[in-house]
Amino acid sequence: MRAVQRYLKGATEPTGAVERLYRLVEADLAHVNALILERMRSDVPLIPELAGHLVNSGGKRLRPMLTLAAAQICGYQGLGHIRLATAVEFIHTATLLHDDVVDESDLRRGKAAAHVIWGNAPSVLVGDFLFSRSFQLMVETGSLRVLNILSNASAVIAEGEVMQLGTKGNIGVTEDTYLKIVASKTAALFAAAAESGAVVAQSDGLREMALKTYGHNLGIAFQLVDDALDYSGREAMMGKAVGDDFREGKLTLPVILALGKASSEEADFWRRTMVQHDQSDADLTHAIHLIDKHHAIGATLSRARQFTEEACRALNVFPDSPMRRALNDLAEFCVSRAY
Amino acid sequence: MRAVQRYLKGATEPTGAVERLYRLVEADLAHVNALILERMRSDVPLIPELAGHLVNSGGKRLRPMLTLAAAQICGYQGLGHIRLATAVEFIHTATLLHDDVVDESDLRRGKAAAHVIWGNAPSVLVGDFLFSRSFQLMVETGSLRVLNILSNASAVIAEGEVMQLGTKGNIGVTEDTYLKIVASKTAALFAAAAESGAVVAQSDGLREMALKTYGHNLGIAFQLVDDALDYSGREAMMGKAVGDDFREGKLTLPVILALGKASSEEADFWRRTMVQHDQSDADLTHAIHLIDKHHAIGATLSRARQFTEEACRALNVFPDSPMRRALNDLAEFCVSRAY
Repeated sequence: MRAVQRYLKGATEPTGAVERLYRLVEADLAHVNALILERMRSDVPLIPELAGHLVNSGGKRLRPMLTLAAAQICGYQGLGHIRLATAVEFIHTATLLHDDVVDESDLRRGKAAAHVIWGNAPSVLVGDFLFSRSFQLMVETGSLRVLNILSNASAVIAEGEVMQLGTKGNIGVTEDTYLKIVASKTAALFAAAAESGAVVAQSDGLREMALKTYGHNLGIAFQLVDDALDYSGREAMMGKAVGDDFREGKLTLPVILALGKASSEEADFWRRTMVQHDQSDADLTHAIHLIDKHHAIGATLSRARQFTEEACRALNVFPDSPMRRALNDLAEFCVSRAY
Repeated sequence: MRAVQRYLKGATEPTGAVERLYRLVEADLAHVNALILERMRSDVPLIPELAGHLVNSGGKRLRPMLTLAAAQICGYQGLGHIRLATAVEFIHTATLLHDDVVDESDLRRGKAAAHVIWGNAPSVLVGDFLFSRSFQLMVETGSLRVLNILSNASAVIAEGEVMQLGTKGNIGVTEDTYLKIVASKTAALFAAAAESGAVVAQSDGLREMALKTYGHNLGIAFQLVDDALDYSGREAMMGKAVGDDFREGKLTLPVILALGKASSEEADFWRRTMVQHDQSDADLTHAIHLIDKHHAIGATLSRARQFTEEACRALNVFPDSPMRRALNDLAEFCVSRAY
């Protein structure tokens, strides 16, 4: 039960939605958690220490759960999905370590970010270590296709992150560009996590594609909701600081939509705070007010809902089953956590 | 000829030694260089821009040459070694980008380091991109053994780098610890570059092991010489700043050996400059004087020579050939460049 609570930390209401999926993959996830701890080990003590700080901080293990669920819904009976799901979580952990250095974020999952405690250098290097470990685990699955899918995803994630750097302080960013960034930096790993689960299960191309589509759309919805919460959530609930994106001058959909309806005075406000990066504490409150005034949170969440509906539609190639229902519920939960 | 000149940039004397190896792999290396440029491409312009800054800055392409040479000495006739050598160079480039962030070095190959021009964030992310690209290339070779060797090497490199962080400002570092760090952070990639060349050529275990041993010992010698040059080289020759290790408080063999023979007054000097990190410009000159006084450069190079001899011995499983002679010469050049 502690594991469920740890997993659900960060959810508004611990609905049955996620617990249902959790129950279905619980046994596998326990193996994944054990393997995560085993493969974090190193003769260099700082590595498991720093990686453990993040790994044990109540992450939702959403991506490895996707891999496990995908393998299971394809009827997989083997053990390769355990290694694969661990590899997926290691890629995610590596990108979080690097992201926190890149964004200079101070909080991650409600704790001080690793680079704040140990500095940038070990965060970069331990990220590299976990990234290498993830490829070692994939090699152990013996599947070149899995390696292909996840090495492609890793390259796309890095591209998305670099693309996002270029949009900081740029109020000309369109919704299209924003969605392209989200598809790369977030959805690519969700898609690869789900698709590779089908591949390890040696499923057919139709099911692989269905799970990839599910993961892709779920990932976009997930990020849209995250970006909405950055202007509307409560800090304790999110485990990270509210207003991070604002302070970093990161143009996300709530701001893009509010900008689209901005008066010239409001546009000046966004220009001063996001482009010239001239911000006071009161400015975040005003930004939230403007986003609220233009119903940009509701519009962002409504976009997110479109993506979760698309995600659920993709699952129709599978016959009805407890797992399909659980994956549908996960998509639902992904948006409902914002309300 | 321009390529040869670019390659030889940084060498004290453009001896026939390296040119002989260069000539033997020249045709393959041209393909590698073309593939490097092709795979650096991305829809995100900053990626090829930043990566190109480093890739086109006259790196010696030593590691991919090793891969090509290893495949060739094993009689390989295919094309897989081109992708593999490119993957090896990408891993190297990724680690350089991350190292420069970690070490806060301002110069790399005689030019401003990428993070000085573009900042830490893109350097970290483009490193991640190149690392992912390298795994994509390995997948294309279709060899899980190659992926195994290079994912292991990548993990070991990261471990070595983290280990080195722990020794900064620590004058208790022994020669053994130092050699362990060097074996991880530098020699692991040399060893993997050579071994995987034999693997892609589907050679036998004896030859794979011989090439791995050659690469490992060459890599250690190469790093020892680099560390000696950091206290004895000329800046223009090295393409990086002299005294970097001193300024960073990085304990390398020249200092470890000088410390072993230090008077109590000299030990105080090392403690102040390396541990308390209280340094003036004149201190580097005094450090070089102390290293000189205790013949620590000569002793470091003499250790390096032992490793190159070991490297050459490993090649004895191969019959005499122009390639074997070229690899022997490369080992010789590796130390002689310091004189």
